[in-house]
Amino acid sequence: MRVATFEIPLGIELLAAALGGLQGALFAAAHRDRRVDVLGVVIIGLSVALGGSLLRDVVLDQPPVVIWANSYLLVAASAAVLGMTLQQTLTRAEWPLTVLDAIVMGLFGAIATSKALSLGVGDVGALVVGVIGSIGGGVLRDILMNRPVSVLHVGTLYAVAAAAGAAALIVLVALSTPILIAGAGSATVTVAVRLAAVRRDWTFPEQGSMRLRRRS
Amino acid sequence: MRVATFEIPLGIELLAAALGGLQGALFAAAHRDRRVDVLGVVIIGLSVALGGSLLRDVVLDQPPVVIWANSYLLVAASAAVLGMTLQQTLTRAEWPLTVLDAIVMGLFGAIATSKALSLGVGDVGALVVGVIGSIGGGVLRDILMNRPVSVLHVGTLYAVAAAAGAAALIVLVALSTPILIAGAGSATVTVAVRLAAVRRDWTFPEQGSMRLRRRS
Amino acid sequence: MRVATFEIPLGIELLAAALGGLQGALFAAAHRDRRVDVLGVVIIGLSVALGGSLLRDVVLDQPPVVIWANSYLLVAASAAVLGMTLQQTLTRAEWPLTVLDAIVMGLFGAIATSKALSLGVGDVGALVVGVIGSIGGGVLRDILMNRPVSVLHVGTLYAVAAAAGAAALIVLVALSTPILIAGAGSATVTVAVRLAAVRRDWTFPEQGSMRLRRRS
Repeated sequence: MRVATFEIPLGIELLAAALGGLQGALFAAAHRDRRVDVLGVVIIGLSVALGGSLLRDVVLDQPPVVIWANSYLLVAASAAVLGMTLQQTLTRAEWPLTVLDAIVMGLFGAIATSKALSLGVGDVGALVVGVIGSIGGGVLRDILMNRPVSVLHVGTLYAVAAAAGAAALIVLVALSTPILIAGAGSATVTVAVRLAAVRRDWTFPEQGSMRLRRRS
Repeated sequence: MRVATFEIPLGIELLAAALGGLQGALFAAAHRDRRVDVLGVVIIGLSVALGGSLLRDVVLDQPPVVIWANSYLLVAASAAVLGMTLQQTLTRAEWPLTVLDAIVMGLFGAIATSKALSLGVGDVGALVVGVIGSIGGGVLRDILMNRPVSVLHVGTLYAVAAAAGAAALIVLVALSTPILIAGAGSATVTVAVRLAAVRRDWTFPEQGSMRLRRRS
Repeated sequence: MRVATFEIPLGIELLAAALGGLQGALFAAAHRDRRVDVLGVVIIGLSVALGGSLLRDVVLDQPPVVIWANSYLLVAASAAVLGMTLQQTLTRAEWPLTVLDAIVMGLFGAIATSKALSLGVGDVGALVVGVIGSIGGGVLRDILMNRPVSVLHVGTLYAVAAAAGAAALIVLVALSTPILIAGAGSATVTVAVRLAAVRRDWTFPEQGSMRLRRRS
């Protein structure tokens, strides 16, 4: 079944890009020992903000929208500069940033999953593309900064939240839910899983503990 | 000269994907100090199983087959979960796994090389695409796990085996060999080089030793 | 406004590829502790020489020219082998190599920026594609070698030189400058910024110092 892409107003999407740029800059700033220079911080900001969208389009063999349109890059880069400047103030606003970050993950995940479905990708592929769209920016950031890719490791639940949201969208679309509602539902699921995980300190089992549990 | 893509029965290709998923999971499990969580292990498994195929299609500017069809992802992910569960039993079966791994490398290399040729890529480009298809999954795994990319380093011969197989296919196709025979021949060359290397502890010269040899 | 791609004679482009291969090999050779084998050095050489061009085409959703044509890969690989063999002699020629490297950066940056513009990419996107084309090879090299990505860090100015050159091309094209002149001007800007940075030991401010400056 072909479906429409979940489209959100450009303003919201740009806000999401801005938040990504901000967070990328704050992240780079929190790793001052790496001596990333000013332009490097902007590059990291762009990666976090737009990396997921870029990787989504590369994997879908489509011209990347963030490259073609000026607005995404401009907004994300400006936000990265802002984040760098206001770093000391912003790092105190940890909880609001976590909430906004979860919303951004949810929105980008829903956009990616529905874009994949609209191109005729199968359900499982759309799930993978959704996860890439949702957390790809963070993966790109970690690769560029030569750090362990955080979404793979115990204690983040990023990937789980992204997968849950993408799965929700696929189920809702299969039930013929209008794409606007399906997209909002998908983003809500991602946000709920992510924030619950942060709040209650949920973690996904480490592979070792899984083995142990099965043996005892 | 345009040629047909070397196609193998879907069943065999899925078996190859399964084996990749299995090996990725075993690999992640052998690096328990990294604290990769369960979903992380599945992601590593998918990367090993399907990364070569994905990178091949990205480099060839084609829609990635592993994204469009559900079966590859499902099979590889299930195999990764299985590998994680049976890890203790499977790590004892080292030699059979090495043989199967070599066969998978050979098959994916032959598929990638012939797909490149069929799209009109030149011989040298097809060789590179063949190597990417054969060992790209392992490279992606190492990048995601923030490890040294093993195929670049002394003592693996992975890249050499992949290049030998791709070269064999290109020569056989140039001699107008039917693609089924050329593909099988190519895979056989990769398997032979790889297993001989493991058996006899062959290594490719380190760049330093090359220099030393030339100076003495 | 649609513009023509800045095209340089194939001979010069191949010379640039050769220089990239040479530098990649010298770089790998200077990190002997990594124990990169001979084929690994060739792979690093290809990444430096052709990685920027490959990433440019992937991001632009075009069939990568370096894969389709044989010549780039052949020339870059031969140069990598040469670089490995003559390593001791060449490392003494540091200044000429730095100059040539800056010229290559400038040329690949101008080609990438103009190719993006000719495909209808916006100015900001073309700037980003120009930077990718100019320094993407070095980024790929660092990722494959599991090193910090040098262009992000204090003291290189690579990214700044690449961005300045790309911006120059965009401005010149907006002023209706013929593409040959715009391309040459763009490359000149990159070379000038890069060499001035090396000569005068310019660095771009670290993010930390920016913050300190604002507070004092």
